[in-house]
Amino acid sequence: MHKVLVPFTEGVEEIEFVAIVDILRRADIAVTTASLKGQSVQGRSNITIQADASLDDVMHDAWDMIVLPGGLPNAHLLRDDANVKAVVERLRAERKSIAAICAAPTALAAYGITAGMNVTAYPACQADMEALQPSSVYMDDNVVEDDFLITSRGAGTAVEFSLRLVAKLCGETKADEIRASIIA
Amino acid sequence: MHKVLVPFTEGVEEIEFVAIVDILRRADIAVTTASLKGQSVQGRSNITIQADASLDDVMHDAWDMIVLPGGLPNAHLLRDDANVKAVVERLRAERKSIAAICAAPTALAAYGITAGMNVTAYPACQADMEALQPSSVYMDDNVVEDDFLITSRGAGTAVEFSLRLVAKLCGETKADEIRASIIA
Repeated sequence: MHKVLVPFTEGVEEIEFVAIVDILRRADIAVTTASLKGQSVQGRSNITIQADASLDDVMHDAWDMIVLPGGLPNAHLLRDDANVKAVVERLRAERKSIAAICAAPTALAAYGITAGMNVTAYPACQADMEALQPSSVYMDDNVVEDDFLITSRGAGTAVEFSLRLVAKLCGETKADEIRASIIA
Repeated sequence: MHKVLVPFTEGVEEIEFVAIVDILRRADIAVTTASLKGQSVQGRSNITIQADASLDDVMHDAWDMIVLPGGLPNAHLLRDDANVKAVVERLRAERKSIAAICAAPTALAAYGITAGMNVTAYPACQADMEALQPSSVYMDDNVVEDDFLITSRGAGTAVEFSLRLVAKLCGETKADEIRASIIA
């Protein structure tokens, strides 16, 4: 069974977070949601969601993929968190998959992960993405997949992004099956 | 400020629930999430979400709209709940708006609200919808608006559904503004 880590904290964009977790779980992927602090997290639209675990407790587990949801300040707090950075860098070294949506790709840019890669992010983040990694190529597509890296743009692209993550881990047939089941 | 009630309970489809609340709050609509029992609700994909209130405590407040999210057993438990039925019937008498997505339109059909109306629902619910209200017309569109009633199909249509609810309450310009802001 594939194992995916979704770290999140205050200000997370709730549609992005929930789409990732819901759609990957529909594909029988073992998703663990991990908060940076505390047991529950209040999102940018004031919806409070409980975390499965604290990131401290699960960061050293084996993961096939890490996915960073957006929303502010969540995306900036993830970017500035040493544990999130450590897991991303470890998965990169292990040649596992790394994904982020909305403002969260800027965290990957800050870590150097996006250097030389095709990427996307929330449109207002384009300048930041390019300033942090001038060798990356910012694209306007809803979802951009380049080797180990999958990035996307915002809450309105979260379902498409999550289906691409399923396709990456489980294949296109499984993604198509879930797409049909949710009328996407 | 428009006031919208979103009742929910165990097995709620998390993307549907969160899209409604998030997108309506982005439009500065006062959304209250109300659980049938308890303070927190575990969704169909095992994401636990905290309710703003208990339905018992807020059902007699003034509401401009009620929105029923889908997911099972949530949609069936909403259907069978006397308080949910009472609020829907009161808002119908007050000529307020009523909305439901996925399996939840079957609750409205069970209450008689969909009689003679154009509706949609999760495809597997079509037979139920038609059996409960033979005078209703089931359509394949992602979102169906008919007078006071707005219905939709599933998690993959939840963002479009929620934007239509914003358009209904706040106008198309506000819905377009939010559509652009979330890249939908």
